[in-house]
Amino acid sequence: MAVNLLEPDLLLAVKGIRLASIAAGIKKSQENDLVLIQMSENSQCAAVFTQNLFCAAPVTIAREHLQLQAPRYLLINSGNANAGTGEQGLRDANKCCELLAKQAGCQAKEVLPFSTGVIGENLPVNNIENSMASLYQQLADDNWINAGRGIMTTDTKLKGISRQIKLQGKVVTVTGVAKGAGMIQPDMATMLSFIATDAAISKQLLQQCLIAAVNNSFNAITVDSDTSTNDACVLIATGQAGNEPITLNSENYQQLAQLINEVCLYLAQAIIRDAEGATKFVELQVNTARSVDDARQVAYTVAHSPLVKTALFASDPNWGRILAAVGRAGVDFDINKIQIYLNDICIVSKGGRDSAYTEEQGQKIMQQQEITIRIEMQTGEHSACIWTSDLSYDYVKINSEYRS
Amino acid sequence: MAVNLLEPDLLLAVKGIRLASIAAGIKKSQENDLVLIQMSENSQCAAVFTQNLFCAAPVTIAREHLQLQAPRYLLINSGNANAGTGEQGLRDANKCCELLAKQAGCQAKEVLPFSTGVIGENLPVNNIENSMASLYQQLADDNWINAGRGIMTTDTKLKGISRQIKLQGKVVTVTGVAKGAGMIQPDMATMLSFIATDAAISKQLLQQCLIAAVNNSFNAITVDSDTSTNDACVLIATGQAGNEPITLNSENYQQLAQLINEVCLYLAQAIIRDAEGATKFVELQVNTARSVDDARQVAYTVAHSPLVKTALFASDPNWGRILAAVGRAGVDFDINKIQIYLNDICIVSKGGRDSAYTEEQGQKIMQQQEITIRIEMQTGEHSACIWTSDLSYDYVKINSEYRS
Repeated sequence: MAVNLLEPDLLLAVKGIRLASIAAGIKKSQENDLVLIQMSENSQCAAVFTQNLFCAAPVTIAREHLQLQAPRYLLINSGNANAGTGEQGLRDANKCCELLAKQAGCQAKEVLPFSTGVIGENLPVNNIENSMASLYQQLADDNWINAGRGIMTTDTKLKGISRQIKLQGKVVTVTGVAKGAGMIQPDMATMLSFIATDAAISKQLLQQCLIAAVNNSFNAITVDSDTSTNDACVLIATGQAGNEPITLNSENYQQLAQLINEVCLYLAQAIIRDAEGATKFVELQVNTARSVDDARQVAYTVAHSPLVKTALFASDPNWGRILAAVGRAGVDFDINKIQIYLNDICIVSKGGRDSAYTEEQGQKIMQQQEITIRIEMQTGEHSACIWTSDLSYDYVKINSEYRS
Repeated sequence: MAVNLLEPDLLLAVKGIRLASIAAGIKKSQENDLVLIQMSENSQCAAVFTQNLFCAAPVTIAREHLQLQAPRYLLINSGNANAGTGEQGLRDANKCCELLAKQAGCQAKEVLPFSTGVIGENLPVNNIENSMASLYQQLADDNWINAGRGIMTTDTKLKGISRQIKLQGKVVTVTGVAKGAGMIQPDMATMLSFIATDAAISKQLLQQCLIAAVNNSFNAITVDSDTSTNDACVLIATGQAGNEPITLNSENYQQLAQLINEVCLYLAQAIIRDAEGATKFVELQVNTARSVDDARQVAYTVAHSPLVKTALFASDPNWGRILAAVGRAGVDFDINKIQIYLNDICIVSKGGRDSAYTEEQGQKIMQQQEITIRIEMQTGEHSACIWTSDLSYDYVKINSEYRS
């Protein structure tokens, strides 16, 4: 059901990164649900996490460990979010770190735990314990695709991408994977996504690079306005590409940052293309706004409107619903000046239907799988762009049958 | 499909009010779609309107007329919202007022126009013109039920109520009708609702009475977070009950205000019971909050969560979704102190599942048609209560087929 999303045939290995994936019996489906990512010594690791106050136990532990020590391992399970699990959840997440530390001969605080899946059920730590040895043995550098599959929940497609550039004559690789597919409105953080590069760069610059990339990618998508308890995005730099360490304001930094941006944007859009029940991929551009905040508020109000989303599902150019959503966004504008476009067709101007607009034009655009809704506020010079999906029968089906 | 909503067998006449309803051919279904409400001379009329910036043409005209003159007529059509129709929409709304004025021998500014239905299509003024004479001839005091039916769009049930009290030995009647059923999150206003009493009261007090009642009724419901372009609630007092005019702070004022509150609350809840596709009627109580705004923000965040709404539809006690919605509401609290209840069963305490909670308890409550979700923030002394519905296949069906 995903919208124009192809699974990658190949994801490139990143020097210094080894991965493993196994079925530990956490998912009822018996698919892979436990993933290990090992990074070489002296790797730098940057991360952003959910802003949901009810953050999951592994998020709490991962944040703590990241303050204490440079991590060597990411341990990720799917099928259980270990969220809303109180003290027991924290004990369980810590226990998993300890089990891996024992297996790998490292310290527990060198492990960052991640979980995704059902909220409110205790993590089956025994399953994880029983699978730890064989998981560890499977570590290999060409395992990105298996790792990407192992973190999936309601996702229908693997989401991953590799890109390369040359820095100082050295080939630098960036490979990343991500999972969606519901409870998606990342807020200053993202869904689960793991990205690695072999570029040499300081931790501080890497974090800066990640935050900039996430703001315009994972933080600019919404399926259903629900920010997950488990969102996390991790960016690793192993430093094994052989380039001179990248410094701030160097041309190399700009090049790498641009590459990270592209990878994050691809993965974020892939999450929307594979959103629960999605039949449309919709870009919301809000331009000529008084501020970026205003532009984002209008964009999210339209993107979250169930009436706009069901009209998109129905391929119905019911533009009155877009107009109504813009009008209630809580942002001031002049209804006689604002303009609303479907792709390049002006549908609303001078407070009503544009005089040149015809229903046939709107119908033709709405039948496409990829649609841009552009809103010109005419109140300033700021813009925002976000991406969303439609609201279909399948969204209701997937989310009413999720635990059954 | 409505949840525990019975249609009234009888709505009591209100002295000084006459009503008419007719099929003018605006709705494709050939059902009644044009309603006239006549009020006797010296009636007082209070009204609140949508805060949507893209308010409909009739809202603009009704607001203007209300400033100029005490109204004598409300002219309401369903099947076409006359919203997003620019200058033509304003001309059409004015034309309707003029047509009625000519028929009734009054001034156009003594008519308040209202519309509800599809946004963005021009009002078929010819249909209204052709029906005006016979509409006017049908005015009668026992026509409340017909009027209530004439304003319906996707509503499946007529929504109306009558209540009586004695003031100074005089029987005072309040009768009101309302329509939903989608694009519902009234904001400082409401959906279309028309309420009349024969009590004698000043316009200023009547408006105060209406605003207070609306705040805790029509402004405390949500189906889909979409504030309509056409929301309006009108409260008429004809002053023909024979009571002494009610003054501020009198016991009579409290009694009448209480009655208006009850009527508004019944009608607002009736809109939720008959919300598009609704199978559940859900009350969200947020208590011990730092402020009413905080409490409302938490309540609305939970009420708008598509994941909470689909879990309600599925009768699935997936309380993790409630917890996740509370956590992203943007309101500060201590996750170890907050408590979440389903009816009287505590489901979340100390940051996770309450130790006494069992899935069976949750399942039993979720299977009911009426459910209360109560959240104790433990950060202060303020409360808010709102009402909402679930998100079902039928919501998607109704809204993807609306214009077809």
